[in-house]
Amino acid sequence: MYGDRLVTTDNINLGVKARGRSSSKADTIARLLEAARREFAINGIARANMETIARSAGVTKQLLYQYYESKHHLFSAVLDQTSGVVMTELLATNFDDLPPVQALQAFTDAVFDQYRVDPLLGRLAREGLGFHEDHHSSHNRFIQLKPALAQKLEGILRRGEACGDFRQDLDVRATLALISLVMTGGFTNSYLLSVILERDTATGEGREAWRRMASEFVLEAIRRKA
Amino acid sequence: MYGDRLVTTDNINLGVKARGRSSSKADTIARLLEAARREFAINGIARANMETIARSAGVTKQLLYQYYESKHHLFSAVLDQTSGVVMTELLATNFDDLPPVQALQAFTDAVFDQYRVDPLLGRLAREGLGFHEDHHSSHNRFIQLKPALAQKLEGILRRGEACGDFRQDLDVRATLALISLVMTGGFTNSYLLSVILERDTATGEGREAWRRMASEFVLEAIRRKA
Repeated sequence: MYGDRLVTTDNINLGVKARGRSSSKADTIARLLEAARREFAINGIARANMETIARSAGVTKQLLYQYYESKHHLFSAVLDQTSGVVMTELLATNFDDLPPVQALQAFTDAVFDQYRVDPLLGRLAREGLGFHEDHHSSHNRFIQLKPALAQKLEGILRRGEACGDFRQDLDVRATLALISLVMTGGFTNSYLLSVILERDTATGEGREAWRRMASEFVLEAIRRKA
Repeated sequence: MYGDRLVTTDNINLGVKARGRSSSKADTIARLLEAARREFAINGIARANMETIARSAGVTKQLLYQYYESKHHLFSAVLDQTSGVVMTELLATNFDDLPPVQALQAFTDAVFDQYRVDPLLGRLAREGLGFHEDHHSSHNRFIQLKPALAQKLEGILRRGEACGDFRQDLDVRATLALISLVMTGGFTNSYLLSVILERDTATGEGREAWRRMASEFVLEAIRRKA
Protein backbone atom coordinates (compact mmCIF):
# COMPACT_ATOMS: atom_id res chain seq x y z
CA MET A 1 0.00 0.00 0.00
CA TYR A 2 2.73 2.42 0.95
CA GLY A 3 4.66 1.34 -2.14
CA ASP A 4 1.85 2.66 -4.32
CA ARG A 5 1.72 5.93 -2.47
CA LEU A 6 5.43 6.52 -2.82
CA VAL A 7 5.11 6.71 -6.59
CA THR A 8 2.75 9.68 -6.38
CA THR A 9 5.31 11.90 -4.65
CA ASP A 10 8.51 13.70 -5.38
CA ASN A 11 10.21 10.35 -4.97
CA ILE A 12 8.79 9.35 -8.34
CA ASN A 13 12.18 9.92 -9.94
CA LEU A 14 13.57 7.04 -7.86
CA GLY A 15 11.38 4.61 -9.77
CA VAL A 16 11.48 5.79 -13.36
CA LYS A 17 15.10 6.87 -13.75
CA ALA A 18 17.10 5.36 -16.60
CA ARG A 19 18.94 2.14 -15.89
CA GLY A 20 22.49 2.23 -14.67
CA ARG A 21 24.43 3.04 -11.61
CA SER A 22 22.36 5.90 -10.16
CA SER A 23 19.17 3.93 -10.71
CA SER A 24 20.44 0.93 -8.80
CA LYS A 25 21.63 3.19 -5.99
CA ALA A 26 18.20 4.83 -5.86
CA ASP A 27 16.55 1.41 -5.86
CA THR A 28 18.74 0.29 -2.99
CA ILE A 29 17.88 3.39 -0.96
CA ALA A 30 14.16 2.92 -1.66
CA ARG A 31 14.37 -0.71 -0.49
CA LEU A 32 16.38 0.23 2.60
CA LEU A 33 13.90 2.95 3.62
CA GLU A 34 10.94 0.63 3.08
CA ALA A 35 12.55 -2.14 5.16
CA ALA A 36 13.56 0.38 7.81
CA ARG A 37 10.13 2.00 8.19
CA ARG A 38 8.60 -1.41 8.71
CA GLU A 39 11.20 -2.43 11.30
CA PHE A 40 10.98 0.90 13.15
CA ALA A 41 7.18 0.84 13.19
CA ILE A 42 7.05 -2.72 14.50
CA ASN A 43 9.91 -2.68 17.00
CA GLY A 44 10.52 0.98 17.80
CA ILE A 45 13.88 2.69 17.45
CA ALA A 46 15.49 1.10 20.48
CA ARG A 47 14.72 -2.48 19.48
CA ALA A 48 15.02 -2.06 15.70
CA ASN A 49 17.79 -4.22 14.27
CA MET A 50 20.10 -2.91 11.53
CA GLU A 51 20.97 -6.46 10.47
CA THR A 52 17.27 -7.26 9.95
CA ILE A 53 16.78 -4.09 7.91
CA ALA A 54 19.77 -4.83 5.68
CA ARG A 55 18.64 -8.42 5.15
CA SER A 56 15.04 -7.39 4.30
CA ALA A 57 16.39 -4.93 1.75
CA GLY A 58 18.70 -7.58 0.29
CA VAL A 59 21.95 -5.79 1.08
CA THR A 60 24.80 -6.27 3.52
CA LYS A 61 24.89 -4.47 6.85
CA GLN A 62 28.14 -2.93 5.65
CA LEU A 63 26.42 -1.33 2.67
CA LEU A 64 23.56 -0.11 4.89
CA TYR A 65 26.12 1.72 7.06
CA GLN A 66 27.65 3.27 3.93
CA TYR A 67 24.35 5.04 3.28
CA TYR A 68 23.28 5.67 6.90
CA GLU A 69 26.04 5.98 9.45
CA SER A 70 23.81 5.14 12.42
CA LYS A 71 20.37 3.87 13.37
CA HIS A 72 19.41 7.42 14.27
CA HIS A 73 20.40 8.71 10.83
CA LEU A 74 18.34 5.96 9.24
CA PHE A 75 15.30 6.68 11.41
CA SER A 76 15.64 10.37 10.65
CA ALA A 77 15.65 9.56 6.90
CA VAL A 78 12.54 7.38 7.31
CA LEU A 79 10.69 10.18 9.14
CA ASP A 80 11.78 12.70 6.55
CA GLN A 81 10.57 10.53 3.67
CA THR A 82 7.33 9.53 5.41
CA SER A 83 6.40 13.08 6.40
CA GLY A 84 7.32 14.18 2.87
CA VAL A 85 4.82 11.69 1.41
CA VAL A 86 2.06 12.72 3.83
CA MET A 87 2.57 16.45 3.39
CA THR A 88 2.88 16.21 -0.40
CA GLU A 89 -0.41 14.33 -0.66
CA LEU A 90 -2.19 16.79 1.61
CA LEU A 91 -0.82 19.68 -0.43
CA ALA A 92 -1.98 18.05 -3.68
CA THR A 93 -5.59 17.95 -2.48
CA ASN A 94 -7.83 20.75 -3.66
CA PHE A 95 -10.39 22.16 -1.21
CA ASP A 96 -11.25 25.36 -3.12
CA ASP A 97 -14.30 23.98 -4.92
CA LEU A 98 -16.15 23.06 -1.72
CA PRO A 99 -18.18 25.37 0.54
CA PRO A 100 -16.18 26.21 3.72
CA VAL A 101 -17.84 23.73 6.12
CA GLN A 102 -17.45 20.84 3.65
CA ALA A 103 -13.94 21.98 2.79
CA LEU A 104 -13.00 21.89 6.49
CA GLN A 105 -14.44 18.40 6.84
CA ALA A 106 -12.58 17.29 3.71
CA PHE A 107 -9.39 18.74 5.22
CA THR A 108 -9.78 16.92 8.55
CA ASP A 109 -10.70 13.71 6.71
CA ALA A 110 -7.62 14.05 4.51
CA VAL A 111 -5.38 14.28 7.60
CA PHE A 112 -7.13 11.26 9.12
CA ASP A 113 -6.94 9.25 5.90
CA GLN A 114 -3.18 9.62 5.66
CA TYR A 115 -2.99 7.60 8.86
CA ARG A 116 -5.84 5.25 7.99
CA VAL A 117 -4.41 4.05 4.67
CA ASP A 118 -0.87 3.61 6.01
CA PRO A 119 -1.03 1.25 8.98
CA LEU A 120 2.57 2.02 9.99
CA LEU A 121 2.16 5.78 10.18
CA GLY A 122 0.67 6.05 13.68
CA ARG A 123 3.47 4.04 15.24
CA LEU A 124 6.18 5.86 13.30
CA ALA A 125 4.72 9.23 14.29
CA ARG A 126 4.59 8.25 17.95
CA GLU A 127 8.14 6.96 17.79
CA GLY A 128 9.10 10.24 16.13
CA LEU A 129 7.65 12.29 19.00
CA GLY A 130 10.15 10.82 21.43
CA PHE A 131 13.00 10.84 18.93
CA HIS A 132 12.72 14.54 18.15
CA GLU A 133 12.94 15.54 21.78
CA ASP A 134 16.46 14.13 21.91
CA HIS A 135 17.72 14.56 18.33
CA HIS A 136 17.81 17.23 15.71
CA SER A 137 17.41 16.01 12.17
CA SER A 138 19.25 17.98 9.51
CA HIS A 139 16.63 17.64 6.77
CA ASN A 140 12.95 17.63 7.59
CA ARG A 141 10.21 17.97 5.01
CA PHE A 142 7.52 18.23 7.70
CA ILE A 143 9.02 21.56 8.79
CA GLN A 144 9.66 22.62 5.18
CA LEU A 145 6.15 21.91 3.91
CA LYS A 146 4.19 22.95 6.98
CA PRO A 147 3.78 26.63 5.98
CA ALA A 148 2.18 25.58 2.66
CA LEU A 149 -0.28 23.36 4.51
CA ALA A 150 -1.10 26.17 6.94
CA GLN A 151 -1.77 28.41 3.95
CA LYS A 152 -4.17 25.84 2.51
CA LEU A 153 -6.09 25.73 5.79
CA GLU A 154 -6.03 29.52 6.00
CA GLY A 155 -7.84 29.70 2.64
CA ILE A 156 -10.65 27.54 4.03
CA LEU A 157 -10.88 29.45 7.32
CA ARG A 158 -10.96 32.90 5.68
CA ARG A 159 -13.68 31.81 3.26
CA GLY A 160 -15.70 30.46 6.18
CA GLU A 161 -15.24 33.67 8.13
CA ALA A 162 -16.26 35.79 5.14
CA CYS A 163 -19.58 33.97 4.69
CA GLY A 164 -20.29 33.85 8.43
CA ASP A 165 -19.95 30.08 8.88
CA PHE A 166 -16.84 30.28 11.08
CA ARG A 167 -15.77 32.37 14.06
CA GLN A 168 -13.81 35.52 13.24
CA ASP A 169 -10.03 35.82 13.57
CA LEU A 170 -9.32 32.13 13.98
CA ASP A 171 -5.62 31.58 14.53
CA VAL A 172 -4.39 29.41 11.64
CA ARG A 173 -1.48 27.79 13.47
CA ALA A 174 -3.54 26.99 16.56
CA THR A 175 -6.30 25.53 14.41
CA LEU A 176 -3.87 23.42 12.37
CA ALA A 177 -2.19 22.20 15.57
CA LEU A 178 -5.52 21.18 17.09
CA ILE A 179 -6.73 19.50 13.89
CA SER A 180 -3.48 17.55 13.58
CA LEU A 181 -3.49 16.45 17.20
CA VAL A 182 -7.14 15.48 17.29
CA MET A 183 -7.42 13.75 13.90
CA THR A 184 -4.22 11.71 14.37
CA GLY A 185 -4.89 11.02 18.06
CA GLY A 186 -6.76 7.77 17.37
CA PHE A 187 -3.52 6.44 15.90
CA THR A 188 -0.78 8.04 17.98
CA ASN A 189 -2.64 8.08 21.33
CA SER A 190 -4.69 4.96 20.76
CA TYR A 191 -4.34 3.50 24.27
CA LEU A 192 -5.44 6.69 26.05
CA LEU A 193 -8.49 7.08 23.83
CA SER A 194 -9.42 3.40 23.88
CA VAL A 195 -9.54 3.37 27.68
CA ILE A 196 -11.61 6.55 27.89
CA LEU A 197 -13.99 5.65 25.06
CA GLU A 198 -14.22 2.02 26.18
CA ARG A 199 -13.77 0.91 22.60
CA ASP A 200 -10.63 -0.05 20.71
CA THR A 201 -9.55 2.74 18.35
CA ALA A 202 -7.12 0.31 16.72
CA THR A 203 -10.01 -1.53 15.00
CA GLY A 204 -11.56 -0.20 11.79
CA GLU A 205 -14.88 0.50 13.52
CA GLY A 206 -13.27 2.19 16.54
CA ARG A 207 -11.13 4.34 14.26
CA GLU A 208 -14.16 5.44 12.25
CA ALA A 209 -16.03 6.32 15.46
CA TRP A 210 -13.06 8.44 16.53
CA ARG A 211 -12.97 10.16 13.14
CA ARG A 212 -16.59 11.22 13.53
CA MET A 213 -16.14 12.48 17.12
CA ALA A 214 -12.91 14.32 16.31
CA SER A 215 -14.28 15.84 13.13
CA GLU A 216 -17.46 17.05 14.83
CA PHE A 217 -15.44 18.47 17.71
CA VAL A 218 -13.23 20.45 15.31
CA LEU A 219 -16.19 21.78 13.36
CA GLU A 220 -18.10 22.81 16.49
CA ALA A 221 -15.02 24.58 17.84
CA ILE A 222 -14.70 26.62 14.65
CA ARG A 223 -18.34 27.33 13.82
CA ARG A 224 -19.70 30.77 14.52
CA LYS A 225 -22.26 31.14 17.29
CA ALA A 226 -25.21 32.64 15.45
CA MET B 1 7.90 17.90 43.70
CA TYR B 2 6.46 14.49 42.98
CA GLY B 3 7.52 13.42 46.45
CA ASP B 4 5.15 15.98 47.93
CA ARG B 5 2.30 14.92 45.73
CA LEU B 6 2.66 11.28 46.67
CA VAL B 7 1.78 12.08 50.25
CA THR B 8 -1.62 13.41 49.25
CA THR B 9 -2.75 10.11 47.72
CA ASP B 10 -3.74 6.67 48.81
CA ASN B 11 -0.04 5.93 49.08
CA ILE B 12 0.01 8.03 52.23
CA ASN B 13 0.03 4.88 54.33
CA LEU B 14 3.45 4.02 52.88
CA GLY B 15 4.94 7.04 54.64
CA VAL B 16 3.26 7.08 58.01
CA LYS B 17 3.08 3.41 58.87
CA ALA B 18 4.57 2.24 62.13
CA ARG B 19 8.22 1.24 62.13
CA GLY B 20 9.18 -2.32 61.51
CA ARG B 21 9.44 -4.81 58.74
CA SER B 22 6.42 -3.85 56.63
CA SER B 23 7.40 -0.20 56.88
CA SER B 24 10.88 -0.82 55.58
CA LYS B 25 9.47 -2.91 52.75
CA ALA B 26 7.02 -0.15 51.86
CA ASP B 27 9.86 2.39 52.01
CA THR B 28 11.95 0.26 49.68
CA ILE B 29 9.11 -0.03 47.18
CA ALA B 30 8.48 3.72 47.32
CA ARG B 31 12.17 4.40 46.66
CA LEU B 32 12.29 1.85 43.84
CA LEU B 33 9.24 3.32 42.12
CA GLU B 34 10.59 6.85 42.45
CA ALA B 35 13.98 5.85 41.01
CA ALA B 36 12.27 3.86 38.25
CA ARG B 37 9.90 6.62 37.15
CA ARG B 38 12.85 8.98 36.81
CA GLU B 39 14.91 6.47 34.82
CA PHE B 40 11.97 5.52 32.55
CA ALA B 41 11.05 9.16 31.92
CA ILE B 42 14.61 10.13 31.04
CA ASN B 43 15.73 7.09 29.06
CA GLY B 44 12.54 5.38 27.92
CA ILE B 45 11.73 1.73 28.61
CA ALA B 46 14.16 0.28 26.10
CA ARG B 47 17.22 2.14 27.39
CA ALA B 48 16.26 2.21 31.09
CA ASN B 49 18.80 0.36 33.21
CA MET B 50 17.71 -1.88 36.09
CA GLU B 51 21.16 -1.58 37.71
CA THR B 52 20.87 2.23 37.72
CA ILE B 53 17.39 2.04 39.24
CA ALA B 54 18.50 -0.32 42.00
CA ARG B 55 21.56 1.84 42.77
CA SER B 56 19.47 5.07 42.90
CA ALA B 57 17.07 3.40 45.32
CA GLY B 58 19.97 2.15 47.45
CA VAL B 59 19.25 -1.55 46.99
CA THR B 60 20.85 -4.43 45.11
CA LYS B 61 19.70 -5.42 41.64
CA GLN B 62 18.89 -8.82 43.17
CA LEU B 63 16.43 -7.25 45.61
CA LEU B 64 14.88 -5.16 42.82
CA TYR B 65 14.17 -8.36 40.89
CA GLN B 66 12.58 -9.87 44.00
CA TYR B 67 9.93 -7.15 43.89
CA TYR B 68 9.63 -6.76 40.11
CA GLU B 69 10.47 -9.78 38.01
CA SER B 70 11.17 -7.80 34.84
CA LYS B 71 11.64 -4.28 33.51
CA HIS B 72 8.13 -4.48 32.04
CA HIS B 73 6.61 -5.35 35.40
CA LEU B 74 8.43 -2.43 36.96
CA PHE B 75 7.31 -0.01 34.25
CA SER B 76 3.78 -1.28 34.60
CA ALA B 77 3.93 -0.61 38.36
CA VAL B 78 5.24 2.92 37.72
CA LEU B 79 2.41 3.66 35.30
CA ASP B 80 -0.13 2.23 37.71
CA GLN B 81 1.15 4.36 40.58
CA THR B 82 1.54 7.51 38.48
CA SER B 83 -1.91 7.27 36.92
CA GLY B 84 -3.30 6.52 40.38
CA VAL B 85 -1.83 9.77 41.72
CA VAL B 86 -3.13 11.81 38.77
CA MET B 87 -6.63 10.32 38.84
CA THR B 88 -6.93 10.56 42.62
CA GLU B 89 -6.05 14.25 42.60
CA LEU B 90 -8.48 14.97 39.77
CA LEU B 91 -11.22 13.11 41.63
CA ALA B 92 -10.50 15.06 44.83
CA THR B 93 -11.14 18.39 43.07
CA ASN B 94 -14.59 19.88 43.53
CA PHE B 95 -16.19 21.63 40.55
CA ASP B 96 -19.77 21.78 41.86
CA ASP B 97 -19.54 25.29 43.30
CA LEU B 98 -18.64 26.91 39.99
CA PRO B 99 -21.00 27.91 37.17
CA PRO B 100 -20.77 25.39 34.28
CA VAL B 101 -18.45 27.36 31.96
CA GLN B 102 -16.00 28.11 34.78
CA ALA B 103 -16.31 24.55 36.06
CA LEU B 104 -15.38 23.22 32.61
CA GLN B 105 -12.37 25.53 32.46
CA ALA B 106 -11.33 24.47 35.95
CA PHE B 107 -11.64 20.84 34.83
CA THR B 108 -9.47 21.30 31.73
CA ASP B 109 -6.96 23.31 33.77
CA ALA B 110 -6.82 20.56 36.38
CA VAL B 111 -5.95 17.97 33.70
CA PHE B 112 -3.29 20.31 32.30
CA ASP B 113 -1.86 21.11 35.73
CA GLN B 114 -1.27 17.44 36.54
CA TYR B 115 1.23 17.45 33.68
CA ARG B 116 2.59 20.93 34.37
CA VAL B 117 3.56 20.31 37.98
CA ASP B 118 5.12 16.89 37.31
CA PRO B 119 7.81 17.35 34.65
CA LEU B 120 8.18 13.60 34.14
CA LEU B 121 4.53 12.90 33.43
CA GLY B 122 4.45 13.82 29.73
CA ARG B 123 7.35 11.52 28.89
CA LEU B 124 6.00 8.67 31.02
CA ALA B 125 2.59 8.98 29.40
CA ARG B 126 4.08 8.94 25.91
CA GLU B 127 6.23 5.95 26.81
CA GLY B 128 3.09 4.30 28.17
CA LEU B 129 1.21 4.76 24.88
CA GLY B 130 3.65 2.48 23.08
CA PHE B 131 3.98 0.09 26.01
CA HIS B 132 0.26 -0.59 26.27
CA GLU B 133 -0.02 -1.54 22.64
CA ASP B 134 2.25 -4.49 23.27
CA HIS B 135 1.58 -5.37 26.92
CA HIS B 136 -1.35 -5.87 29.19
CA SER B 137 -0.87 -4.75 32.75
CA SER B 138 -2.70 -6.71 35.39
CA HIS B 139 -3.50 -3.79 37.69
CA ASN B 140 -4.34 -0.40 36.28
CA ARG B 141 -5.79 2.44 38.30
CA PHE B 142 -6.31 4.58 35.20
CA ILE B 143 -8.91 2.08 33.97
CA GLN B 144 -10.34 1.62 37.47
CA LEU B 145 -10.79 5.31 38.23
CA LYS B 146 -11.80 6.51 34.77
CA PRO B 147 -15.58 5.98 35.25
CA ALA B 148 -15.54 8.21 38.36
CA LEU B 149 -13.76 10.95 36.42
CA ALA B 150 -16.25 10.64 33.56
CA GLN B 151 -19.05 11.01 36.13
CA LYS B 152 -17.46 14.19 37.45
CA LEU B 153 -17.32 15.65 33.94
CA GLU B 154 -20.87 14.50 33.28
CA GLY B 155 -22.06 16.57 36.25
CA ILE B 156 -20.52 19.69 34.70
CA LEU B 157 -21.88 18.97 31.22
CA ARG B 158 -25.43 18.27 32.38
CA ARG B 159 -25.51 21.46 34.45
CA GLY B 160 -24.27 23.41 31.41
CA GLU B 161 -26.90 21.82 29.19
CA ALA B 162 -29.64 22.55 31.70
CA CYS B 163 -28.87 26.28 31.84
CA GLY B 164 -28.36 26.53 28.07
CA ASP B 165 -24.60 27.23 28.14
CA PHE B 166 -23.61 23.95 26.46
CA ARG B 167 -24.84 21.97 23.47
CA GLN B 168 -27.44 19.31 24.20
CA ASP B 169 -26.69 15.57 24.45
CA LEU B 170 -22.93 15.90 24.63
CA ASP B 171 -21.34 12.47 24.76
CA VAL B 172 -19.42 12.28 28.04
CA ARG B 173 -16.82 9.73 26.92
CA ALA B 174 -16.09 11.54 23.65
CA THR B 175 -15.79 14.84 25.50
CA LEU B 176 -13.47 13.38 28.14
CA ALA B 177 -11.36 11.74 25.43
CA LEU B 178 -11.02 15.00 23.53
CA ILE B 179 -10.25 17.01 26.66
CA SER B 180 -7.59 14.51 27.75
CA LEU B 181 -5.96 14.39 24.33
CA VAL B 182 -5.97 18.13 23.77
CA MET B 183 -4.96 19.29 27.26
CA THR B 184 -2.09 16.78 27.57
CA GLY B 185 -1.01 17.16 23.92
CA GLY B 186 1.47 19.93 24.70
CA PHE B 187 3.35 17.41 26.84
CA THR B 188 2.88 14.09 25.03
CA ASN B 189 2.88 15.45 21.45
CA SER B 190 5.24 18.34 22.07
CA TYR B 191 7.29 17.99 18.86
CA LEU B 192 4.24 17.92 16.55
CA LEU B 193 2.72 20.98 18.18
CA SER B 194 5.99 22.88 18.44
CA VAL B 195 6.61 22.55 14.69
CA ILE B 196 3.08 23.61 13.77
CA LEU B 197 2.84 26.46 16.26
CA GLU B 198 6.43 27.57 15.56
CA ARG B 199 7.01 27.88 19.28
CA ASP B 200 8.44 25.41 21.77
CA THR B 201 5.69 23.87 23.90
CA ALA B 202 8.38 22.46 26.19
CA THR B 203 9.09 25.93 27.65
CA GLY B 204 6.90 27.43 30.37
CA GLU B 205 5.66 30.18 28.05
CA GLY B 206 4.95 27.80 25.15
CA ARG B 207 3.09 25.45 27.46
CA GLU B 208 0.93 28.26 28.80
CA ALA B 209 0.12 29.38 25.25
CA TRP B 210 -0.95 25.83 24.44
CA ARG B 211 -3.13 25.67 27.55
CA ARG B 212 -5.00 28.78 26.44
CA MET B 213 -5.49 27.54 22.86
CA ALA B 214 -6.55 24.05 23.95
CA SER B 215 -8.87 25.32 26.66
CA GLU B 216 -10.57 27.81 24.31
CA PHE B 217 -10.93 25.11 21.65
CA VAL B 218 -12.63 22.76 24.11
CA LEU B 219 -14.98 25.43 25.39
CA GLU B 220 -15.96 26.58 21.89
CA ALA B 221 -16.61 22.97 20.84
CA ILE B 222 -18.99 22.50 23.77
CA ARG B 223 -20.75 25.87 23.90
CA ARG B 224 -24.25 26.11 22.58
CA LYS B 225 -24.80 28.13 19.41
CA ALA B 226 -27.30 30.75 20.54
